[in-house]
Amino acid sequence: MDIKQYMQGVGRDARAASRAMAKASTGAKNAALNAIADAIVRDAGALLAANAQDMDQARADGLDAALLDRLQLTDKTIATMAEGLRQIAALPDPIGNMGDFKYRPSGIQVGKMRVPLGVIGIIYEARPNVTADAAGLCIKSGNATILRGGREAFHCNQAIAKLVKEGLEVAGLPAAAVQIVETPDRSAVGELITMTEFVDVIVPRGGKSLIARIAADARVPVIKHLDGICHVYIDDEADPEKAIRIADNAKTHRYAPCNTMETLLVNATVAELILPPLAEIYRAKGVELRGCPATRDILPDAIAATEEDWRTEYLAPILSIKVVADLDEAIDHINTYGSHHTDAIVTENYTKSRRFLREVDSASVMINASTRFADGFEYGLGAEIGISTDKIHARGPVGLEGLTSEKWIVFGDGEIRV
Amino acid sequence: MDIKQYMQGVGRDARAASRAMAKASTGAKNAALNAIADAIVRDAGALLAANAQDMDQARADGLDAALLDRLQLTDKTIATMAEGLRQIAALPDPIGNMGDFKYRPSGIQVGKMRVPLGVIGIIYEARPNVTADAAGLCIKSGNATILRGGREAFHCNQAIAKLVKEGLEVAGLPAAAVQIVETPDRSAVGELITMTEFVDVIVPRGGKSLIARIAADARVPVIKHLDGICHVYIDDEADPEKAIRIADNAKTHRYAPCNTMETLLVNATVAELILPPLAEIYRAKGVELRGCPATRDILPDAIAATEEDWRTEYLAPILSIKVVADLDEAIDHINTYGSHHTDAIVTENYTKSRRFLREVDSASVMINASTRFADGFEYGLGAEIGISTDKIHARGPVGLEGLTSEKWIVFGDGEIRV
Repeated sequence: MDIKQYMQGVGRDARAASRAMAKASTGAKNAALNAIADAIVRDAGALLAANAQDMDQARADGLDAALLDRLQLTDKTIATMAEGLRQIAALPDPIGNMGDFKYRPSGIQVGKMRVPLGVIGIIYEARPNVTADAAGLCIKSGNATILRGGREAFHCNQAIAKLVKEGLEVAGLPAAAVQIVETPDRSAVGELITMTEFVDVIVPRGGKSLIARIAADARVPVIKHLDGICHVYIDDEADPEKAIRIADNAKTHRYAPCNTMETLLVNATVAELILPPLAEIYRAKGVELRGCPATRDILPDAIAATEEDWRTEYLAPILSIKVVADLDEAIDHINTYGSHHTDAIVTENYTKSRRFLREVDSASVMINASTRFADGFEYGLGAEIGISTDKIHARGPVGLEGLTSEKWIVFGDGEIRV
Repeated sequence: MDIKQYMQGVGRDARAASRAMAKASTGAKNAALNAIADAIVRDAGALLAANAQDMDQARADGLDAALLDRLQLTDKTIATMAEGLRQIAALPDPIGNMGDFKYRPSGIQVGKMRVPLGVIGIIYEARPNVTADAAGLCIKSGNATILRGGREAFHCNQAIAKLVKEGLEVAGLPAAAVQIVETPDRSAVGELITMTEFVDVIVPRGGKSLIARIAADARVPVIKHLDGICHVYIDDEADPEKAIRIADNAKTHRYAPCNTMETLLVNATVAELILPPLAEIYRAKGVELRGCPATRDILPDAIAATEEDWRTEYLAPILSIKVVADLDEAIDHINTYGSHHTDAIVTENYTKSRRFLREVDSASVMINASTRFADGFEYGLGAEIGISTDKIHARGPVGLEGLTSEKWIVFGDGEIRV
């Protein structure tokens, strides 16, 4: 197969399908989503069989346990997939929203209309549930999508794709609205991320190295997530009870997510009050502590933190702790070493909370709440295609709206420019 | 000079200045803008002298008349530059706007705050007024900026930069908030558009070839404008008087702007009624007509249009005309051959106007108005950094808001994730 020619064909079909999707009714899109959910429940057996084929191959290839775990489909994950699609069907349709209208002195009335982006390329790794999830979000937002899953999930992804196409056709929508790249050849990704005439945005989901590589090579704009080096700053005017509760939850609720705290900053005035009881909680949960010299004066058994620690996303039961002199030092540390993802202050002080809110340059900035809340569902988006650490277009949790854009619309009555 | 090292230094200083600009008060930013305007008026003589130096060099280098015209400063263009800055000072400050607040079941209150993008790189050609204009927009929107003007305007740009720095310092803002690249070496552009750690977005302003080259080589996101192949579709239910007025204005008001009509589409039912009187107007104004076979049946002296004509932005008194069977053919032609910039329908029909509005995939879609209205000032943005033909982040005329982003803000009372 000539990969370039094949991908150009996929792109051309996607572009054509995107026109039909852009004008598809809300009812048709919801009917497709529910039909896909029905088909997934109906054909659960076939999906499990296809998944078993992938699992056998993955085991034969010696893939590690974490990857096998992500690849595995079960009755429960299949039910969750179907339920996710029904939830997307129940969300309001963002497309066609109009607003911001104003009359101009020329007589024209200017406003904006929310529209799909067009064609979205999604590149992801082992999890086969992303196939249904991403397809669902793109259908609801009126986009066509080209999905490129991991080679490990090849059979399962093809089986899901078949059901997606069936659901689209049941609803009278073009089957090419959701296409799965049908070759495991790696060069297909290279084509996908450079076909600027056919693809409007790329959303990579997966490990940092995959995303960095795609961002480096893409010619199509990328909505991406790199590091999650999140901070909690405990101010000298913090409520100690809230501070300990939040610092505990932000680190230990779960260790792997991107919104988990990696560095704790504590104001010097309250460090002796806050750190010992907090360290006891962390120790009981098996969290390794790495501290600056002032931290180690208070917690002698903490390991000495290096410069590298402030820049590290552990994704593990490890926490770096720094004692800071004041709010300025805290904000400066966060803006310098953080990843502009999610950062929180714990304080009862009005002025300092306002300064933290404005001056911390992160996608999510919080007062007296756990960083773990930075999530599309917790924010009420109803669904999440990912979390963006970019600044343009979409920042932080990205829901349906992140897959749309706004065009200007002008209502006139024969006006001309003079 | 080691260009890479120099540009890294510029980038580092810009990043540091962007922190101060992000928290600068509205009053300080406005004070800077007005101080720069004052300094420009005060030092008009020095600016004219620097400009004369550039003009002499440009003439010696044999640059063409159009470029010399863009390069030339006059008392009037200097007054316009100063007035432009005062107008930017008078606009509302977009930074710090908060909204979309909602309480979530967890107890947290989630909303959004408008924030600067950070560091904006602007690359432009001969016009020295862009230096003041772009600096003004970036100051008001709380960004730091790195300006890279054309080599032809080198002395004049340096003279303007000196006044900008003076104005920033008068207002207590960092002088490095606006930096002009001080080397004519072309490789500085290559550095600017790839320093992802120091630059958040690139705005190229100039000819299509400059922009295409920058977009191809940039690693930093680019807000760009490529073609303006704009259409007017005259429907069979158009008011003939509005149709002729709009089709005349959209083509002949000015020939060079990107929002000027390049292709006229006319419904077959009304072609014989509309085209002859319209052709008479165009002929009187010296517009060359190129038509499809059906057009030439009605206008025998029109030149035969080729496939290439439908894809061409003439920027000249040339118009291609196509007779179409219906709305579907018109929309299909626009989405296929257009540049997704600005397209208008002339019709009195409610249903067809709604379909055109939704299905035409362009940054500006108009009903019964001239395409020439697609402009930041006409839309009421108060200022314009450019017009984007991209889909993500900013579409169509880009004002102050296009230089900003939104971050999520969370107000809590000690909430943790369970």
